[in-house]
Amino acid sequence: MTINVLTISGSLRKGSFNTALQHALPALAPADMKLTEAPSYESFPLYNADIQNSTGFPEAVKALADAIRNADGVVIITPEYNYSVPGALKNAIDWVSRLENQPFKDKPVAIQSATGGPLGGARMQYHLRSILVFLNAHTFNTPEIFVGSAHTKFNEKLELTDETTKKFVSQQLEAFGKYIARVRAD
Amino acid sequence: MTINVLTISGSLRKGSFNTALQHALPALAPADMKLTEAPSYESFPLYNADIQNSTGFPEAVKALADAIRNADGVVIITPEYNYSVPGALKNAIDWVSRLENQPFKDKPVAIQSATGGPLGGARMQYHLRSILVFLNAHTFNTPEIFVGSAHTKFNEKLELTDETTKKFVSQQLEAFGKYIARVRAD
Amino acid sequence: MTINVLTISGSLRKGSFNTALQHALPALAPADMKLTEAPSYESFPLYNADIQNSTGFPEAVKALADAIRNADGVVIITPEYNYSVPGALKNAIDWVSRLENQPFKDKPVAIQSATGGPLGGARMQYHLRSILVFLNAHTFNTPEIFVGSAHTKFNEKLELTDETTKKFVSQQLEAFGKYIARVRAD
Amino acid sequence: MTINVLTISGSLRKGSFNTALQHALPALAPADMKLTEAPSYESFPLYNADIQNSTGFPEAVKALADAIRNADGVVIITPEYNYSVPGALKNAIDWVSRLENQPFKDKPVAIQSATGGPLGGARMQYHLRSILVFLNAHTFNTPEIFVGSAHTKFNEKLELTDETTKKFVSQQLEAFGKYIARVRAD
Repeated sequence: MTINVLTISGSLRKGSFNTALQHALPALAPADMKLTEAPSYESFPLYNADIQNSTGFPEAVKALADAIRNADGVVIITPEYNYSVPGALKNAIDWVSRLENQPFKDKPVAIQSATGGPLGGARMQYHLRSILVFLNAHTFNTPEIFVGSAHTKFNEKLELTDETTKKFVSQQLEAFGKYIARVRAD
Repeated sequence: MTINVLTISGSLRKGSFNTALQHALPALAPADMKLTEAPSYESFPLYNADIQNSTGFPEAVKALADAIRNADGVVIITPEYNYSVPGALKNAIDWVSRLENQPFKDKPVAIQSATGGPLGGARMQYHLRSILVFLNAHTFNTPEIFVGSAHTKFNEKLELTDETTKKFVSQQLEAFGKYIARVRAD
Repeated sequence: MTINVLTISGSLRKGSFNTALQHALPALAPADMKLTEAPSYESFPLYNADIQNSTGFPEAVKALADAIRNADGVVIITPEYNYSVPGALKNAIDWVSRLENQPFKDKPVAIQSATGGPLGGARMQYHLRSILVFLNAHTFNTPEIFVGSAHTKFNEKLELTDETTKKFVSQQLEAFGKYIARVRAD
Repeated sequence: MTINVLTISGSLRKGSFNTALQHALPALAPADMKLTEAPSYESFPLYNADIQNSTGFPEAVKALADAIRNADGVVIITPEYNYSVPGALKNAIDWVSRLENQPFKDKPVAIQSATGGPLGGARMQYHLRSILVFLNAHTFNTPEIFVGSAHTKFNEKLELTDETTKKFVSQQLEAFGKYIARVRAD
């Protein structure tokens, strides 16, 4: 049976290493896992309850939430900005979290991060994990993926070339597939 | 000598308890402290380095950064969304953090938070503190301000009526004024 | 089928509200859950790899680890000391984490905390959750249990008398039982 | 005027890289900074309020607290155990935090960490920072010191040989000296 996994990048810029890592995932996934890139949150307004209460949830918010709900699991691949989750990604989470039938509830989630610096997003990931406690997601533990010094691990076409990183990412995706099977609500 | 303090609300909605708390601060500040509300970050686009690199920093980003730079200290009054910093506020921080002469560098910062739930923002504040480590701000320690069950502490006109909260907030502002004097670069 | 759950208190003092909460759990658990109090870690030396390498693991360390391994799940009930996990409890975790066949691996864990102050341990719990990520436990999300102002919720015999707390704790134990069934490795 | 700085290692084992880093600090400090190693906390019992209330604070606890009080600043050099502060070090902090005239109050503190793994203690340091918020210390921000892959940076005599690490550590100590002068209570 195919495991359908949605991937969400935490960066909006075209040359992002995190989006490049997102693009690299299908080739690294186990045979029974199908990866789909999430619809964009680039058009989301800054969250404001007054917008929600006057004009309702933007269509793009509903589209992202539906994609999360329809997936068997989610992989979030995101940079660390100022030691925490990028504001734009957090804003997307804030929007979908307000919907009835909150989409992250009971959803298996794995995290990956790539950074130019050596630590690979280590401060950010535990902030994101706390957020996912509130959202009642099932956050996958280990192997954790921290891609430090990202500029040395992708080529000029933004293809992931570092074999060690490829191996770890493959191991995470395989273990995540098993985790999804394990925690899936019956 | 007057201590000039900028106040930033982490909520964009009109009826926000945090913005209400922001409005209440001038009446609770010591005589030598002048509080000014920060220019809005409501028009900031979601941070994207491609925007920064093509059209440059939006004027509203520069205006917020200038206001921070010109202040002797900053008070951030913010809700907790999903156990962390609201995406919109984090997005504002992400934008100003990219400027040369990063405005939070060496700046004294105090934190207050109000929430409908009982814990008053206790998970969020330590995320914000980590962010401020990266930004090399001087984050004020204690008394910390957690306004839980906020709906019981403001009246229908959104005026702060709870005397205990008023007292704690006054104590923080007075201690923050002394802290600013202490850590101010010569 | 009976679900066997081990309970560990993070406090060593006799009059601890957390140990009192631990004692209250059997009466609040679902019919199919059997709760057993963990063997004490009070005799553990401060962790020092030189002790481990010279005289080996103390018997009491092995006893606690065996109790964790033999349980279907673990509930940790602990105070917050200085915004984090008590050193004595962390020391116990540090010891058992060094054993081969690390006992928290794949183990469902729930957290409860009681404090004299109003926040009920809210800063500590996310530190403990990070620790449990490293240990590759399955940490239960919600309902989270924060027993603030603990002196108002227990009587002089240290019996839990607050009905709201009882209800929340019962809900957590029931949901934790279902979670154990869900994530149990086959 | 000499700046007196106390150094505390978070590891008790003889061959610790963190204690080795502690030993390396005097040679890397600015001329006006005198570094003294703290009295040991190895004999502290596991914290238990019943001990405190029956036989009082152990002499070794008072000795550590006095050393902290008498210093102009403190550098904590510590490994990361299970993504957080070692239990033994946390236990030492728990003990001294209970004393009247709590010794970390208003004390400038800098943090360094060395680990075998690549991340150098990045998860632990933010836990320690939260602890120091409660203790109302003045925690130094940046440069932060994360010595990853420590086995490559010390020789067989446990002397720090890595020039890049030496440079960063010197920079931190110099900046910490200036920070102490800045935040020192008059």
